[in-house]
Amino acid sequence: MRTPIVERMTGLLARKGLDAIVTSSPENFAYLTGFVVPTQPLIRHRHAMAIVTASGEEAVFAVDMEESTVRGKLPETPLSVWREFHDDPMEVLAETLKGLGLAAASIGLEFDYLPAGDYARLVGFMPDARFVPVEKDIALLRQIKTPDEVALIHRLARIADEAICDSFAAVKAGDTEMDIAAVLTRRIYELGAEDFKLLIVATGERSQLPNVGPSLRILQRGDVCRVEIFAVIAGYQAGVCRTAYVQEPPPMAEEIWKLMVECKYAILDQIRPGASCLAVYNDFIRRLATMNLPPISFVGHGIGLHLHEDPYIGATPILGSPAGDATIEADMVLGFEPLCYRTGYGFGVQNKDVLHVTANGSVLLSDKADTDTMIRIA
Amino acid sequence: MRTPIVERMTGLLARKGLDAIVTSSPENFAYLTGFVVPTQPLIRHRHAMAIVTASGEEAVFAVDMEESTVRGKLPETPLSVWREFHDDPMEVLAETLKGLGLAAASIGLEFDYLPAGDYARLVGFMPDARFVPVEKDIALLRQIKTPDEVALIHRLARIADEAICDSFAAVKAGDTEMDIAAVLTRRIYELGAEDFKLLIVATGERSQLPNVGPSLRILQRGDVCRVEIFAVIAGYQAGVCRTAYVQEPPPMAEEIWKLMVECKYAILDQIRPGASCLAVYNDFIRRLATMNLPPISFVGHGIGLHLHEDPYIGATPILGSPAGDATIEADMVLGFEPLCYRTGYGFGVQNKDVLHVTANGSVLLSDKADTDTMIRIA
Repeated sequence: MRTPIVERMTGLLARKGLDAIVTSSPENFAYLTGFVVPTQPLIRHRHAMAIVTASGEEAVFAVDMEESTVRGKLPETPLSVWREFHDDPMEVLAETLKGLGLAAASIGLEFDYLPAGDYARLVGFMPDARFVPVEKDIALLRQIKTPDEVALIHRLARIADEAICDSFAAVKAGDTEMDIAAVLTRRIYELGAEDFKLLIVATGERSQLPNVGPSLRILQRGDVCRVEIFAVIAGYQAGVCRTAYVQEPPPMAEEIWKLMVECKYAILDQIRPGASCLAVYNDFIRRLATMNLPPISFVGHGIGLHLHEDPYIGATPILGSPAGDATIEADMVLGFEPLCYRTGYGFGVQNKDVLHVTANGSVLLSDKADTDTMIRIA
Repeated sequence: MRTPIVERMTGLLARKGLDAIVTSSPENFAYLTGFVVPTQPLIRHRHAMAIVTASGEEAVFAVDMEESTVRGKLPETPLSVWREFHDDPMEVLAETLKGLGLAAASIGLEFDYLPAGDYARLVGFMPDARFVPVEKDIALLRQIKTPDEVALIHRLARIADEAICDSFAAVKAGDTEMDIAAVLTRRIYELGAEDFKLLIVATGERSQLPNVGPSLRILQRGDVCRVEIFAVIAGYQAGVCRTAYVQEPPPMAEEIWKLMVECKYAILDQIRPGASCLAVYNDFIRRLATMNLPPISFVGHGIGLHLHEDPYIGATPILGSPAGDATIEADMVLGFEPLCYRTGYGFGVQNKDVLHVTANGSVLLSDKADTDTMIRIA
């Protein structure tokens, strides 16, 4: 498993007075091991888990169909295999935990992932153990990225950014949204991503729709084109959104874009260790209001192994702050996206970037495109 | 909601003596409503649920961010909205259920989906209710497709089939796996799919790897090319896999392909109402053994709203049969895939199709490609 992450987990175990953590979500398996068990996110019952004990012992747990993959990735780590269709995975997990001396232990679980039925059976197989929710604690750990995580997210952000720019450069008026998508998805793979998520190609009047894939709509002079994609490697994901116009920007598009760019730089300026998420958000909403643009509920959020992670740059962060605010810390990585889907002028604009919080400020990770003016499609 | 599905649910409620069903998975929400709440599969805490009572009352439950989408799709159905970051969704759900007169009711839940933490809080908010697992009962209902479901899966299977054929026709020796993927993903959208899943482009020695995306590997004379993709609309998905060779089939490829085609027709012949899944599987394994090809653990499975549904055409179906077998019924829709990843000759072959079980036999739904001989890439 990944040593810096295992060390964070053993630190958490010590602080919480727990004997072990058993992760069950694909994200936290990837967090500890550095890879995703391929079919775990696709087939719900194919449980894969990573186990860390207070003394730093490690073990993994996977379905027989994925045994060779897991052994290949973690040849040194003890692996318990449960047989699909034969075994109750919770019985095999209980035996594994008992084998680690945890029969009567205090064990942290992801109560926001492990299904209620599996949990009830696990409790039945381990009547002397005590199970404690640790999902929020792990979410707090995941907010602070290691140098390897920052480097990978930087790579992913650049892939998404470059692929979008290449797709804009490859099309012209008369082509379709599908032509943008074809270049974009191809470039995502060519630039090294393993997969992608959340492909949005929204042009003309469709640019007002938050989450739409590509259609056969034909690009026309005066269209606004909103394109977003997340590049994915080893479970990590970074999303970028860029907005272009075809040949000529429609009325008010450049004025609204100028405001979005000001918001981008304002956020990059304000985000630093100690900054208030709420203050950054309120400043953004205030800027939107100067052009009578409607507010959105958050302008950014942590990113890494899940589409949204804590903290949210919004009015109501859900973790880490009883006061409804969260404080920025060094080595957070945030997606941030000044946007307005319904500008009132028949188009929507969005600019989504990724930043890394450094000791003194923030650094833009999605740094391929020049977004200072709207991108032009020929 | 969809009347034929609601009627199945009320039938299930009557048989089980339950007062209501509350679905929590994206699949069963789509099963009842005909659509997927866009961010539910992406952001785990964004619960969306569909509720049916024994008397046929309907209600839905969704996060505020998705309110307009759900209202637009189901203008007639009562909708409870919970506020992300403000509300405990389980508290809002409990109030909704109490408003339906279900405070002390027997309520079916998906115990294989609802997280343990949410379930514990729901029980806390509804101490007088009794909660019963119904996930296996719903899985059995979902095995038997309605005419609309069959028509949609037919459409999806044809999209995937045609898109793969088009991608083979568009490339030639010297092109890369990425060129196949670019044509394939573009065609999937052009032919009308909303999304796709599980893109596999595995050529040459990579054709032996079960689940790999496209790489920059260059197509060479004598390559075997395995390509698979699932087309997706409204949560329904159908996958097709085709195998081609570049210019000239490598030694033994045509012989092994001939066996796969015989297996395909044997399965289509054997599958009919009353057929034993185990017998169909054993016949397939016997045929593989005639060429000393290794067995696989199942040769097919139900398909619809999830990548794998019951029944499995394999040694150990997990539902509907204490004897380790399952019986084919009319209006099942099955994916079936004679395959061998490791033929022993440096390549793997796979042919994945979709069939519909009719009153007297079965009909091939992925009926665009001629698979009787391996497809040739120029």
